[in-house]
Amino acid sequence: MVTGIFEEKLSKIGKNLKSSLIRDLLKYAQIPGAISFGGGAPDPETFPSKELGEIAKEILENEYKFTLQYIPTEGDEELKEEFIKLLDRIYGITDVAKKNLLMTTGSQQALDILARIFLDEDSYVIVESPSYLGALNAFYVSFPKFIAIPLEKDGMDINYLEKVLKDLDEKGEIEKVKFIYTVPTFQNPAGVTMSLEKRKALIELAEKYDIIIVEDDPYGALYFDETPPDSLYKLAGKERVILLNTFSKILTPGLRIGVIIADENIISKAVMAKQSADLCSSGLTQRLAARFLKKYDLLDYLKSIRAVYKEKRDIMIEAMEEHLKPYGVTWNKPGGGLFIWIELPEGYDTMEMLDIAKEKLVFYIPGKAFLVDVEKSSTARLSFCLPPKEVIPEGIKRLAEVIEEYKKEKGL
Amino acid sequence: MVTGIFEEKLSKIGKNLKSSLIRDLLKYAQIPGAISFGGGAPDPETFPSKELGEIAKEILENEYKFTLQYIPTEGDEELKEEFIKLLDRIYGITDVAKKNLLMTTGSQQALDILARIFLDEDSYVIVESPSYLGALNAFYVSFPKFIAIPLEKDGMDINYLEKVLKDLDEKGEIEKVKFIYTVPTFQNPAGVTMSLEKRKALIELAEKYDIIIVEDDPYGALYFDETPPDSLYKLAGKERVILLNTFSKILTPGLRIGVIIADENIISKAVMAKQSADLCSSGLTQRLAARFLKKYDLLDYLKSIRAVYKEKRDIMIEAMEEHLKPYGVTWNKPGGGLFIWIELPEGYDTMEMLDIAKEKLVFYIPGKAFLVDVEKSSTARLSFCLPPKEVIPEGIKRLAEVIEEYKKEKGL
Repeated sequence: MVTGIFEEKLSKIGKNLKSSLIRDLLKYAQIPGAISFGGGAPDPETFPSKELGEIAKEILENEYKFTLQYIPTEGDEELKEEFIKLLDRIYGITDVAKKNLLMTTGSQQALDILARIFLDEDSYVIVESPSYLGALNAFYVSFPKFIAIPLEKDGMDINYLEKVLKDLDEKGEIEKVKFIYTVPTFQNPAGVTMSLEKRKALIELAEKYDIIIVEDDPYGALYFDETPPDSLYKLAGKERVILLNTFSKILTPGLRIGVIIADENIISKAVMAKQSADLCSSGLTQRLAARFLKKYDLLDYLKSIRAVYKEKRDIMIEAMEEHLKPYGVTWNKPGGGLFIWIELPEGYDTMEMLDIAKEKLVFYIPGKAFLVDVEKSSTARLSFCLPPKEVIPEGIKRLAEVIEEYKKEKGL
Repeated sequence: MVTGIFEEKLSKIGKNLKSSLIRDLLKYAQIPGAISFGGGAPDPETFPSKELGEIAKEILENEYKFTLQYIPTEGDEELKEEFIKLLDRIYGITDVAKKNLLMTTGSQQALDILARIFLDEDSYVIVESPSYLGALNAFYVSFPKFIAIPLEKDGMDINYLEKVLKDLDEKGEIEKVKFIYTVPTFQNPAGVTMSLEKRKALIELAEKYDIIIVEDDPYGALYFDETPPDSLYKLAGKERVILLNTFSKILTPGLRIGVIIADENIISKAVMAKQSADLCSSGLTQRLAARFLKKYDLLDYLKSIRAVYKEKRDIMIEAMEEHLKPYGVTWNKPGGGLFIWIELPEGYDTMEMLDIAKEKLVFYIPGKAFLVDVEKSSTARLSFCLPPKEVIPEGIKRLAEVIEEYKKEKGL
């Protein structure tokens, strides 16, 4: 089987798989001395590693019949119980029973499972523009048609969405619209939060045209200023919304725990899809999270995480005011989450600028990565979560140097 | 979204997903007093839980920047290094570098990834009859055409395979045959091992018609009597064979670690498929396995596992001689692994017999679950791995009672 013959055997999916831009960038970000605003990896200094270490020892020694064995595809019952309490305490969501939950390998597997059970090649899926890259990748596998709805400062352009749905309805295509995918709170990559008014309007449209809403909410608990508006799930319930949550940003990504919260009929299909995908997730990592939630108060712990990220955001914004504003760079100050979306003046191509960024040892994700069908873009995502706060100003200064050099090169 | 409307939104995959027979059976097997020969879960008393507990504490406290963070999709480099040594020591395989490995969420995810990157609806996939149910489930998602090759006591019927391939070649369809899936050693469910002669003949056919061989080898290290013949991978190399391995049966399934060993071009596609499926597996569970392999000698540990299962196999065979032979039940004594495949005389339908088995509190998997396109079958898979050795004879006695009762009912 030489390479050529192996290529011939690939499926349509296999032929279309391409390495993601972010993956390739992360390699450069490993260079010593580099400052990376690229990935969305949380600050490891926020992880309760000592507490988790104690618990792991205990549950491996005393509960090995569960933690080291195959477990049910649905997930750890104890974790589900703890998560149900958390949904109430953090979000005021009270209508969830264990049968409405499926624990997944991070939110990425949740997105993958939803693509599998809902999307065909002739399906439409509605996303935000820009949208979370991992979701786009998961959906691409089913080759659906994407419809991108522009994001405004207070969330999706609802008028645009309404027009799109009306057109599809008139063309007799509305039943092929499977779901609307949104990250309404501290969006990745744009950092914006959908207003309560728009949330209600979105639900109204989804009900009118009978479309499922997939609400991805990894960052809702990471607010720095005021608490965000009620979640779409809380407003419309499981009859309309599939809610995705994760422990990656509020505890640690290394446990690889995401959650699908949905109508029990959807959960039942999702469980079967997960069974064929990987049988079950680890009982060790799930019981570890469950026991942490039982022994410690995650809400206390969240206060300290919020303080860490709020300080980093403020430091980054201050440095941007000083170094980037003079170049006409604009941004939206996020009220929480991990990301700031910046927009450079016309003529700047953030993808092309990466070559200079590599030399200057500073990394960001070009906006193009988050946009469907766009040739080039003057936007970029900056993450303030991973780099130590002390190096953030220096990183922003380097970014200004990148802009300066590109400006000279292009005569902008 | 009432159930009906939700159903309308499902994809072709979503509509076709059905709960597996084994899953449903496992629920009954939880009934107090039940003896289950159903699942393939290893005996938890073989797990090195104390050692793993100590290591987990250490690597969570001291290596949290790795164990609790996102890690590269490819998997833990340290685990890869240890696994490469293991491949040499257990199998005499020496041509594997880190770029030839992808760590997956158990072998199930490996099967799922191979289905994604190779199978389309018009593809053929060749499997054994009976075949591992989890593989069939993973492949079904791509809706390929299955070709089932009967298993003999020394593995696949190679003459039958040759005829099938010749026919497909004459019809001009041979290029659509993506791979031959086989569990050549201590097969699940049949317990048989492919002879060296047949292994060589299989490779010859695969080379003649240029077809990939997917060799799934979860049980090769669990031999009780003599060591099994060389693996297909060792005989034909990564130019022809994709080898799947797992820590589930030789260490613990709870860590959820499988491995794809293949040509680096295949690994590269598999990595991209895994990235869209779940970004990465847990760094905690992978580092835990890596450190265990570094600190302890898995080959020593395997000796004690083999002793446990060999004793259980012998106890089960002895009980079968006493209680099942009088009913004309036949079987093949497996030289390793976890399963015995039994065949009842004509007229017995092991699926229908489950109703009686539920009353008698004994469980097995009807052969039908492992057969493609079969209406009914007088075969069944018995696992001797999970039940304590003391209860195995009682379980077999109950099975004889089930046969007795069914015989009376049907006047056989």
